[in-house]
Amino acid sequence: MNYKMIGRILALILAIEAILMLPAFILTMVDGEPFVSRAFRLTFYIMIIVIVLLMFLCRNARMKFYAREGLVCVGLCWIVMSLTGCLPFFFSRQIPHYVDALFEIVSGFTTTGASIISNVEVISRGLLYWRSFSHWIGGMGVLIFLLALIPISGKNHGFTLHLMRAESPGPDVGKLMPRMRETALILYIIYVALTVLDTIFLLLGGMPFFDSICTAFGTAGTGGFGVRADSLASYSPYLQWVTTVFMMLFGVNFNMYYLLILRNFKIILKDGELKLYLGFFLGSTLLITLNIFRLYPGIFVSLRHAAFQVATVMTTTGYATADFDRWPVFSKTILLCLMVSGACAGSTGGGMKWARVSLLYKAMRRNLRKLLYPRRVEVIRMNGAVVDERIVDNTMAYLAVYCLIAVGSFLIISLDGFSVETNLSGMLACFNNIGPGLGEVGPTLNYENYSVLSKLVLIFDMLAGRLEIFPIIVLFSGSTWNRK
Amino acid sequence: MNYKMIGRILALILAIEAILMLPAFILTMVDGEPFVSRAFRLTFYIMIIVIVLLMFLCRNARMKFYAREGLVCVGLCWIVMSLTGCLPFFFSRQIPHYVDALFEIVSGFTTTGASIISNVEVISRGLLYWRSFSHWIGGMGVLIFLLALIPISGKNHGFTLHLMRAESPGPDVGKLMPRMRETALILYIIYVALTVLDTIFLLLGGMPFFDSICTAFGTAGTGGFGVRADSLASYSPYLQWVTTVFMMLFGVNFNMYYLLILRNFKIILKDGELKLYLGFFLGSTLLITLNIFRLYPGIFVSLRHAAFQVATVMTTTGYATADFDRWPVFSKTILLCLMVSGACAGSTGGGMKWARVSLLYKAMRRNLRKLLYPRRVEVIRMNGAVVDERIVDNTMAYLAVYCLIAVGSFLIISLDGFSVETNLSGMLACFNNIGPGLGEVGPTLNYENYSVLSKLVLIFDMLAGRLEIFPIIVLFSGSTWNRK
Repeated sequence: MNYKMIGRILALILAIEAILMLPAFILTMVDGEPFVSRAFRLTFYIMIIVIVLLMFLCRNARMKFYAREGLVCVGLCWIVMSLTGCLPFFFSRQIPHYVDALFEIVSGFTTTGASIISNVEVISRGLLYWRSFSHWIGGMGVLIFLLALIPISGKNHGFTLHLMRAESPGPDVGKLMPRMRETALILYIIYVALTVLDTIFLLLGGMPFFDSICTAFGTAGTGGFGVRADSLASYSPYLQWVTTVFMMLFGVNFNMYYLLILRNFKIILKDGELKLYLGFFLGSTLLITLNIFRLYPGIFVSLRHAAFQVATVMTTTGYATADFDRWPVFSKTILLCLMVSGACAGSTGGGMKWARVSLLYKAMRRNLRKLLYPRRVEVIRMNGAVVDERIVDNTMAYLAVYCLIAVGSFLIISLDGFSVETNLSGMLACFNNIGPGLGEVGPTLNYENYSVLSKLVLIFDMLAGRLEIFPIIVLFSGSTWNRK
Repeated sequence: MNYKMIGRILALILAIEAILMLPAFILTMVDGEPFVSRAFRLTFYIMIIVIVLLMFLCRNARMKFYAREGLVCVGLCWIVMSLTGCLPFFFSRQIPHYVDALFEIVSGFTTTGASIISNVEVISRGLLYWRSFSHWIGGMGVLIFLLALIPISGKNHGFTLHLMRAESPGPDVGKLMPRMRETALILYIIYVALTVLDTIFLLLGGMPFFDSICTAFGTAGTGGFGVRADSLASYSPYLQWVTTVFMMLFGVNFNMYYLLILRNFKIILKDGELKLYLGFFLGSTLLITLNIFRLYPGIFVSLRHAAFQVATVMTTTGYATADFDRWPVFSKTILLCLMVSGACAGSTGGGMKWARVSLLYKAMRRNLRKLLYPRRVEVIRMNGAVVDERIVDNTMAYLAVYCLIAVGSFLIISLDGFSVETNLSGMLACFNNIGPGLGEVGPTLNYENYSVLSKLVLIFDMLAGRLEIFPIIVLFSGSTWNRK
């Protein structure tokens, strides 16, 4: 294990994090909140000490970097970032318990949006900004940001590749997966452009500037932290529709935008995942609209709430305009199922991803044909191209780990005595980086009342969900630390 | 597709079913219930007509028989058996709706034990006997019974093999899987012997003869239909312990008993699945005992209820001595998870089977190691032997189909508006052939109130669960009926 190299990357990530924290710090000074400013300053001191220590201990690092190091490094970076990123909440006493503060920032970085704060409107603006901004940072991945900015790797492509593979979401199916610094940069430019566009549309609808920026961050990262206690319920229908559209846009594979720039419309229109994603969005919205029809005045209000809630769950954002916990069980079950499938691979959204769902479905059909005609050779195709059997195996193994972690977490958090519905939806909402669940963790409530143990389990789930499991479980696996 | 051969086998199965129905018919005559006797007689007439028609239409059948035919044949046999097997309930008007009667008998044959009858104590003894006996028939598999009795296949081993593969539970891991007529016969002898032993132990505890036989049938098939409204709650602690032990015995891979007869203790002690099965039984019992400690007078009562309920869920039997729906959420969640894992492969129990769970876990670990060291070749071992990669692939695909069917069914039955807990546990209880779930379908309640659509979905789930999915979905797959 190349510990020194990992140490250096950790130091770099912390430095970037400190820089990204500056706007929030400045905001606390502008707003004249000395106690919160002091919390940020204290955090900076600690970060600087850690950075200096790491740089000192990890000088003369070798450049050799294998897949193993890539996974461990990504897992560790996210944990260290979270451990320090939550300090302003803790030091300012706005979140008095450290585990709660950690839960909040992990929820931010992993773009989950699950909160332990019962009333966000009493929290200082600087902290609210940092909380929403953490979604934006986590949405695209901070290591990809690092790679986009700094040519740290020189000519060592393996290094870049292993880090990006470990941090970017979705099965490695397409040929356009970000592999190089240039791609990372292009993706970040698209990300920034879409975020700016969203902010402008929100401002045009009369949303205050601070709210617009924070909402756009939450939408872009598919996070879901809001600045109002009722999430987006009290904003105008126009603002809710804008957010619906942008949530869906950020749930699309970013390669599509890249293809759009290249004017390669043919591939976009033929993309199977995009079709599934939009098809399920329209279908679910329709079914839910019909199901909740009687709860709202008029079909358009029902449609707006249905579309918003389907978009928020599919893209794993977690904003809400209606308390869907009060909807009929059929609608709730649709949302519960959409929680698992999630958004598209290569987007900022979480969940299993539609590419995986589609791959699993195809593998199932293939296997069925194999049973019927044992001697035929059957391949799996995605968008016309044959999928490598290793990716199929990998996706299958992913499903197995996914199920194991889901069952284990579900079991542990049930110790707290909440209802089965609460525990199941809460676990799925954290594991798939959505945020609100049903029952006691529904859109109008929060995760405050879970025990410390459950919160730690949910923190693990959020990280495992965002990093697609392997970089996190690798840290807990014996064979990783095996010296052999 | 060799339709004629399938038709002949269907006719044979119907003939066997008619013979197996005779004891119940005789019982209704002894009890002097002419209306119920007439229902059986009517059923016999219909069966005879169908048998004669099938034999006439399917004369001159070719012997050629492929995997495809094996799967289709098993699926069709179970469906036809159920369609006719439910007629006595329907004709006697003791279950007035046909779909309800079908639900009941499918629940019987698939050894689920989910019922739509709210008070079994008003049902005629002949029908109760047939209901419990259907568990016993379904537990071992009626096609295996056919193969054990009749040398239908001559020298065509492929025929026997394809049928047995399609009907016997568990991934095809061990070397001792029943392949030939002789093995089928030995397994049936073990099955009969254990059932007789169970009956004797129950009689020794003072249980009435009729109750003993029916309870033993339900235990042997891991079914769960009882003859009393409160299942086994009102029987003595001795009888409950006897049933706990025998449920666990019937959940063990029957090859273990075969090995026991051969005095091959070494392989038994080394069997990984058996260790998992017993380990999880002891662990879960302990955890639940501690969790429900305060609800019962004394540790031994808690232990008895915990052990019974864990055994009933793990072996997918479905008897109950306590209303576990009222237990703390942690205990309920443990039971919910055990519902999925189920019993051992090659037993009469349902669920995923521990061999599959273990295989999935190992595949996950292997995949993790592959990520860490991409160039190493890693194999999966079970009980020391390397597992064929095709079996691993198959198990993975099984998990994928399992998840898809589970999600689909969960969604459809949620239309009826019951709670998420009810729907989730009800779907799992049917799909894994357990019987009672939580909430509205808890141990003291039943499936009566679901809509016809939901009942049909649950019937599909029960059949898919018992036949391990493929023989049933093969019937609904386009490529099966493709003439190409």
